[in-house]
This record gives sequence, C-alpha cells and structure tokens, in this order.
Amino acid sequence: MGLRPLHDRVIVKRVDQETKTASGIVLPETAAEKPDQGEVLAIGTGKILEDGRIRPLAIKVGERVLFGKYAGQSVKVDGQELLVMREEDLFAVIEE
Amino acid sequence: MGLRPLHDRVIVKRVDQETKTASGIVLPETAAEKPDQGEVLAIGTGKILEDGRIRPLAIKVGERVLFGKYAGQSVKVDGQELLVMREEDLFAVIEE
Amino acid sequence: MGLRPLHDRVIVKRVDQETKTASGIVLPETAAEKPDQGEVLAIGTGKILEDGRIRPLAIKVGERVLFGKYAGQSVKVDGQELLVMREEDLFAVIEE
Amino acid sequence: MGLRPLHDRVIVKRVDQETKTASGIVLPETAAEKPDQGEVLAIGTGKILEDGRIRPLAIKVGERVLFGKYAGQSVKVDGQELLVMREEDLFAVIEE
Amino acid sequence: MGLRPLHDRVIVKRVDQETKTASGIVLPETAAEKPDQGEVLAIGTGKILEDGRIRPLAIKVGERVLFGKYAGQSVKVDGQELLVMREEDLFAVIEE
Amino acid sequence: MGLRPLHDRVIVKRVDQETKTASGIVLPETAAEKPDQGEVLAIGTGKILEDGRIRPLAIKVGERVLFGKYAGQSVKVDGQELLVMREEDLFAVIEE
Amino acid sequence: MGLRPLHDRVIVKRVDQETKTASGIVLPETAAEKPDQGEVLAIGTGKILEDGRIRPLAIKVGERVLFGKYAGQSVKVDGQELLVMREEDLFAVIEE
Repeated sequence: MGLRPLHDRVIVKRVDQETKTASGIVLPETAAEKPDQGEVLAIGTGKILEDGRIRPLAIKVGERVLFGKYAGQSVKVDGQELLVMREEDLFAVIEE
Repeated sequence: MGLRPLHDRVIVKRVDQETKTASGIVLPETAAEKPDQGEVLAIGTGKILEDGRIRPLAIKVGERVLFGKYAGQSVKVDGQELLVMREEDLFAVIEE
Repeated sequence: MGLRPLHDRVIVKRVDQETKTASGIVLPETAAEKPDQGEVLAIGTGKILEDGRIRPLAIKVGERVLFGKYAGQSVKVDGQELLVMREEDLFAVIEE
Repeated sequence: MGLRPLHDRVIVKRVDQETKTASGIVLPETAAEKPDQGEVLAIGTGKILEDGRIRPLAIKVGERVLFGKYAGQSVKVDGQELLVMREEDLFAVIEE
Repeated sequence: MGLRPLHDRVIVKRVDQETKTASGIVLPETAAEKPDQGEVLAIGTGKILEDGRIRPLAIKVGERVLFGKYAGQSVKVDGQELLVMREEDLFAVIEE
Repeated sequence: MGLRPLHDRVIVKRVDQETKTASGIVLPETAAEKPDQGEVLAIGTGKILEDGRIRPLAIKVGERVLFGKYAGQSVKVDGQELLVMREEDLFAVIEE
Repeated sequence: MGLRPLHDRVIVKRVDQETKTASGIVLPETAAEKPDQGEVLAIGTGKILEDGRIRPLAIKVGERVLFGKYAGQSVKVDGQELLVMREEDLFAVIEE
C-alpha cells in the first residue's frame, strides 16, 4: 500500500536516536520521550503558492529530518504508526 | 440524491481499515476508534485563488484518502453519515 | 418585504430532512436536532476579491444546500426565522 | 451635529421590528430582545483595498439593514444611542 | 514638547461630551463613564501599504473624533493623559 | 559590545519621565510604574515587505520614543536592561 | 553529524553570558535563568516569499545572537541541547 501525500505534506516515520556517553556506551533514550527525528517516507508535489503555482519541497524521500516534539498528526497505516506533517513543521535535514 | 460540493470541499465516506497480524489474522480496529481513512464521494470545482481564478483539486472521486482523526464535519444525507472536508484537510491518497 | 444580501452573504431557510427506513416508513428527525439543510432564499452580488473585483457566487436562489450544524446567524424577518451565512459556510448543493 | 464615518464604517440607528400575527394584530417584540434591524444614518467613503484604492460601500444612507444581534459598538451622540459597524457586519438590505 | 506619531498612529485627547435635555439643561455625563470622543492632537505620516507605499490618513489635527470606549492605549506626556490609537480605531469625525 | 538589530527591530533604553507640578516642583514618577518612554540605541536595516524589498525604519538612533507600557521584551546585555521592540510597537517620536 | 536547517530556520547553541561588576568581578548568571544569547551553528537557505522566491537570511554561521527567553524549540542532537528558531525570532546580532 503506497501513500501519495497532498501538496506540502510529508509522511515521516519516527526513528530512535541513540546517544553515546563520553566513554562510548550507547544509551537509548527513555521510552517516555518520543524521538524528534524521523525518516521521510513520502512527500507531496509541493506547496501551493498564493497565485496557484507549485513550489517543490526542499526535502527528499529517505532523508532524516528533525522536527518538534509535538509536530504532526499520527496515523496508522498497515498497522504502522506514521506521522503526517507539513514541510514547514520540519526543522532541518540531518546529514551523516 | 446527488451532492455537488462547493469550491474546495470534498465529501468523504469513512471506511474501516482492517489490520492483519503477522500471522495473517484480520483484526478490525476497535469500534471506539473511528477510522481515519475514507473514500471520496464527490469533489468541488476547485480552490478559489486570491485573484479569483480556480485551482482544480488534486484528488479524484473514488480515491481512498487519509485524514486527521478530527478532520471535517459530519452530515447526514439520506440516512448516511458522511464527512465534509476541505481539500487541505486531506493528508494523502492511499494507492493500492 | 425583500432581502438583498450584501456581497457573499446568502439567506437560507432551514428545511426538514425526512429519512426513510429500509421498509419505506418516513421518520422525521428528532426535533432536538436542527436540520443541516436549507433552501437558498436570496444571495449577494458576489465575494469581493482583494483587488476589489467581484466574484459571483456559485449557488442560485432556490437551490437546496448542505451546511454545518452551527453555521450562520439566525435572524427573524416578518416573524420567520432565517439563517444568514457567507457562501463559504455552505458545503454543497443537494441535487435531486 | 453631523457624523462623517471613516472608510468602511457605517452609523446605524436601531429600529423596532413589529411582527403581525396571522389575524393582523401587531405584536411588538419583547423589549429584552434588541432589534437586529436599523436605518443607515451615515456611511464612510469606502473600504480601503490592499493596494490603497478605495471601494465605495454597497449601501446608501436611509436604507434599512439587517445585522447580527451583537454586531457593532454602541456610541452615544447628542444623547442618542447609535451603532457603529463596518460594512462587512451588515447582512442585507431590507427592501419594502 | 511635541509628539510625532509614527505611520498610522494618532494622538487623541479625550473631551467631555455634554448632553442637553429637551429643556436645554446641560447634563455632564457621569464621571464613571469615560467619553468616547476626543480631539486629534497629532497624526502620523500615513498607513504603510503592503507594497511599501504610504497612504495619508483621512483625519486632520484639530478634528473631533468618535471612537470605541476601550480603544487605544493611554500614555502620560507632560503630566497629561493622552490616547494613542491607530487610524482604524477611529469611527467617525464629528462635524459641528 | 555593539548590537545590530535585525530587520525592523529596535533596541530601546527606558528613560525616566519627570513631571513638573504647576509650581515647578519635579515629581519623579513612582518606581512601581515603569516609564513608557525611552531612547533608541540601535535600529535594524528595515522592515521586509512581502515582495522581499526593505523599507527603512522611520526612526533614528538617539531619538526619544513613546511606547506602550507592556511593549517589547526585556533583555540584559552587559548588565544593562534593555528593551527589544519592533518599529510598529513604537507610538511616536518625542521632539523637544 | 551535520544539520541543514530548512528555509528560514536557524540552529543556535545557548551560551552563557557573564556579567562583570563595576569592580571587575565576574558574576555568572544564576543557573535558573537561561541565557538569551547564543551562537549560530547552522542556517537555512532563506525565507520563502509569497511569490516563491527565496530571501537569504540576514545572519551568518558563527555570529552571536540575542533572542527572547522563550524563543525557539529545543532539540537534542548527539546528546547536545540545541535551539531551533526562525530568523524572525532573533532580535539582534551581538558584535564584539
């Protein structure tokens, strides 16, 4: 089942962010705090400008993105919990 | 009785989303949680831009769409409960 | 006494929506629930665009329209209770 | 003392609306319910558009208008209670 | 000390409004109710439009204006209580 | 340490406003009431218009300005308490 | 791990602001009060104008900026707490 987001919507899947201590031990974040990073699964065709033209989005499928803790709305598709956001809810692309 | 939505409104009928477990058993979602998917029954002629021109909608009648749990307003037509939304309340088209 | 709505206002008179059961018995909706349908009695000359031009409305006098339960403001004219709305409060035209 | 409203403001004087019963008896509305009709006493030169041009108002002095129960702000001029509204607070012109 | 308001601001000094009874006796309004009239002491160069141009204000220094009871912000200059408003907070010019 | 405000921001330092009684005695305002006047310490390059052009600000460094009691946000720079405002929070320039 | 902010977002790292007393003793601010200064770590490509064009930001990476106490949203990247803001949340650049 594929998702085709409309306009400036993006579908994001939350991914866990592991943090390393100075000594290199990996500490998973506590389960209570949802990760504010995710992978872009699908993007819309672009933001519709006031004059009707379309501006393509500045992110690509597969990129890892940073967003606010409370951004987006969660939906369940094929039993998987996903986040639907607008491009403007995304803060930054995380490059590795 | 037919419905002709105005401008960027769409008429959507909620459809149940069945989820399969890994072993293939179909689990209908609990009745308490309304499905956030539906089928588009009718669409308006398009969104009116600030200069009065009309931008046709990006969805078609018959498509299956994903939307927020609390999106739209419910109306009863011919004893059937339907949802009226604006195109911008729709998140994505679900392609099978 | 005639009413000439201004700009994008429309005057609507609520009409009851009868629902038929499968066996054909007509069940009037409960009085407690106001109908969300009505007949358009009068319309304005059109919506004023940002540049001052006028866009004529997409509905006509006599059409039956669908709207939100809490849409519009009620006024009493000649002892008759009417609803005043903007065109954008209307969801759809009901065609029979 | 004359009033020259600015831009898209109008000065309205509330007028009572008498309702006749089927048998022709005139029933004044209860005093507790303020009439939602009035006579236009003065109008501004017009609504200022975003580009600075002026759009003349769609109503004239002397016309009877319909408005929302809580529309406008009341002012007292020469001991007379008047309503100041914007043109967009007016619903319709009542023609007799 | 002079005041040069910026853009579409105006400086207004509240003035009392005396009301005459039918027999000609002057009744000052009760002190508890602040007058909603004032004299324009200074005006800005004009409202800045979206494209950066300036639209001169529609009132002049010395004119008597009508405004809402709660309009404006009060400031104290040289021990005198004045009101600062935007032109759009003014309802009308009172001509005598 | 210098401050270069961005766009339409201005940095203001509150100054006390002394009021003289009729007999010439200077009464400092009570400490509880913060002065609504200040001196402009630094200004931004200008307000960015919708089309991206820049409109220079209408005030200059060194001018004394009048503003609302609750305008701006206070910041501490080099141990000095300053106010950061947008140009549109300023009411007027005080000329002596 | 690098961060590429989108559009008009900037990534800022809070920095402590030490204040010196008249006699030259350095007093760190109390821990309870978060510093309202920071260093710009990364900036977006620019603010998107209404017509789709991009206006580059007015700040550069490495600059020290002043912002409101409650501005931005905090994110944790690589165990480091950072602030994500829009350019318009920034008050001024601090030049030394």
